[in-house]
Amino acid sequence: MLYAGLAGKGDQGMQNPSGQVDRPVSFHFLESMLPKAVKRRVHALKRLQVQCANIEAKFYEEVHELERKYAALYQPLFDKRRDIVTGTVEPTDEECEWQSDRDEEEELADAKKEEATPEEDPKGIPEFWLTIFKSVDMLSDMLQEHDEPILKHLKDIQVKFSEPGEPMSFTLGFHFEPNGYFNNAVLTKVYKMKSEPDPSDPFSFEGPEIIDCEGCQIDWHKGKDVTVKTIKKKQKHKGRGTVRTVTKQVPNDSFFNFFNPVKGENSEFTLATDFEIGHFFRERIVPRAVLYFTGEALEDDESEQDEDGDDDDDEGDFDPKVCLHPTLPSLSL
Amino acid sequence: MLYAGLAGKGDQGMQNPSGQVDRPVSFHFLESMLPKAVKRRVHALKRLQVQCANIEAKFYEEVHELERKYAALYQPLFDKRRDIVTGTVEPTDEECEWQSDRDEEEELADAKKEEATPEEDPKGIPEFWLTIFKSVDMLSDMLQEHDEPILKHLKDIQVKFSEPGEPMSFTLGFHFEPNGYFNNAVLTKVYKMKSEPDPSDPFSFEGPEIIDCEGCQIDWHKGKDVTVKTIKKKQKHKGRGTVRTVTKQVPNDSFFNFFNPVKGENSEFTLATDFEIGHFFRERIVPRAVLYFTGEALEDDESEQDEDGDDDDDEGDFDPKVCLHPTLPSLSL
Repeated sequence: MLYAGLAGKGDQGMQNPSGQVDRPVSFHFLESMLPKAVKRRVHALKRLQVQCANIEAKFYEEVHELERKYAALYQPLFDKRRDIVTGTVEPTDEECEWQSDRDEEEELADAKKEEATPEEDPKGIPEFWLTIFKSVDMLSDMLQEHDEPILKHLKDIQVKFSEPGEPMSFTLGFHFEPNGYFNNAVLTKVYKMKSEPDPSDPFSFEGPEIIDCEGCQIDWHKGKDVTVKTIKKKQKHKGRGTVRTVTKQVPNDSFFNFFNPVKGENSEFTLATDFEIGHFFRERIVPRAVLYFTGEALEDDESEQDEDGDDDDDEGDFDPKVCLHPTLPSLSL
Repeated sequence: MLYAGLAGKGDQGMQNPSGQVDRPVSFHFLESMLPKAVKRRVHALKRLQVQCANIEAKFYEEVHELERKYAALYQPLFDKRRDIVTGTVEPTDEECEWQSDRDEEEELADAKKEEATPEEDPKGIPEFWLTIFKSVDMLSDMLQEHDEPILKHLKDIQVKFSEPGEPMSFTLGFHFEPNGYFNNAVLTKVYKMKSEPDPSDPFSFEGPEIIDCEGCQIDWHKGKDVTVKTIKKKQKHKGRGTVRTVTKQVPNDSFFNFFNPVKGENSEFTLATDFEIGHFFRERIVPRAVLYFTGEALEDDESEQDEDGDDDDDEGDFDPKVCLHPTLPSLSL
């Protein structure tokens, strides 16, 4: 819609008679309605803006370096987590001190449980990662029943950042204990990123974006590949009219398709979903796994979602607390 | 809702018979149902998680430093922008070269305009900031008709970060040319931030958050203060029953209340809105003002909003392109 009332008004802006801003006007047209000398100056500002975008790209490269630096600081804590989860290390009493804020409920539950079952002591924290997969919607959507026994063998998920000088990327590593399903000790998925403004559209630059990803070959034990299933099909011979049954391998739903996604229109693994999942592992699950195990992070994510739902403001769909510095952004955004 | 079926099942997780995850269960209860030895290990993981939050706080401090460093790199470009906007500097032909992607529409408009009016050459880019205020919903909501002539004198908006060692904050500076409304050359608003995990709730830490803000005293010329209005009120004398008219000053809607917000329940200036606006100036308006002037940034913000609207996924309310590194986050989130 072009706002005819603007013609000839020069610099009087984009207000219509009701005092409301007339938003649907094309910016190309608005710009073109400016006096030539003003339009020229606006173009100068746009050139400055391109320079800003190039500086911003360098900023994000430095943030990536900072993330690499901090990844090394987190790693000993994540290693300790893995050792406790797998039962390799038993934490000391001091390392386990924790004041629960719901002691009464807990005692009640303890009492109940003691009636019901003798105290167990399994190794480490059983099904730690599987429980997380089941709790987070984005992951449970991919999870199939046949994936569960395999994921019980998942020991750790790690994030590795690309080295300086390499094209920007991060790699998710899913570390498994020896299992009856495949030979790989680690299944990997690399997410490649781009951190430069597109010269043909520099203003759309908002920091690094995931541009591609690459899974890995899973070396399945014979008959254990859950990403395919064997179906029987009746086949009719054209000439003779006889019917025979043939078996055929077809793709099967499974979380493990994550390592070799079929990117088709009818697939659940669209590229966007895949990027989202990779990002979620990197920014939420790996850095705060225990909170997804206990459910604390889920409660946070959900209450933030609710707040967003209440907010009808156009530009206001934003929680200042969450958004202020979300270099490691929350997905509630 | 407590999921009774879990009692005595030990580590078998939180699945109900339908295979769906039973989400409303309190995490306190789930945690309490774990065998004691496992619960102990989970507590050890929580202690590690607190250490992670403390490392994360240091990370965000370094990001803040990085932002300070880059603010100095952007500043010469922003100064140049101000000089072009105010007409202090006329950009060279080379500085104005810009290939418009809608040349035809532009020529058409040029032709139309030449018919209608003689070519104008006002100083700089008139009403640059006022046009932005009118275009952005969050700002136009605050804008009153009586604010507009004042904002025509706005020359620049700047962001200054706190120095290292000082409590973390940023200051918005609204720079005005001499005008008939107030004596201040700069109106300021400081946003104070906190970048440490709350010891009583360390897991809620997601980076720095705005915790307080402070405006400034505006030295209005006599009778020019648009944040108050004079009303006439009839007052009846209790004893004599005579009626007299008194004048009274009451608060008046105005953008300039931004510098002295009334934080009441019935006020539009709730603290949350105030933080949101400050954040929006800092992260969007100041860094890319020309794109809000032309409307290009508005189109981006809106199309992102639409995408969000389509997305019904619980954790999926997220555009990987926008969110990946939003240290300078977009408010479309």
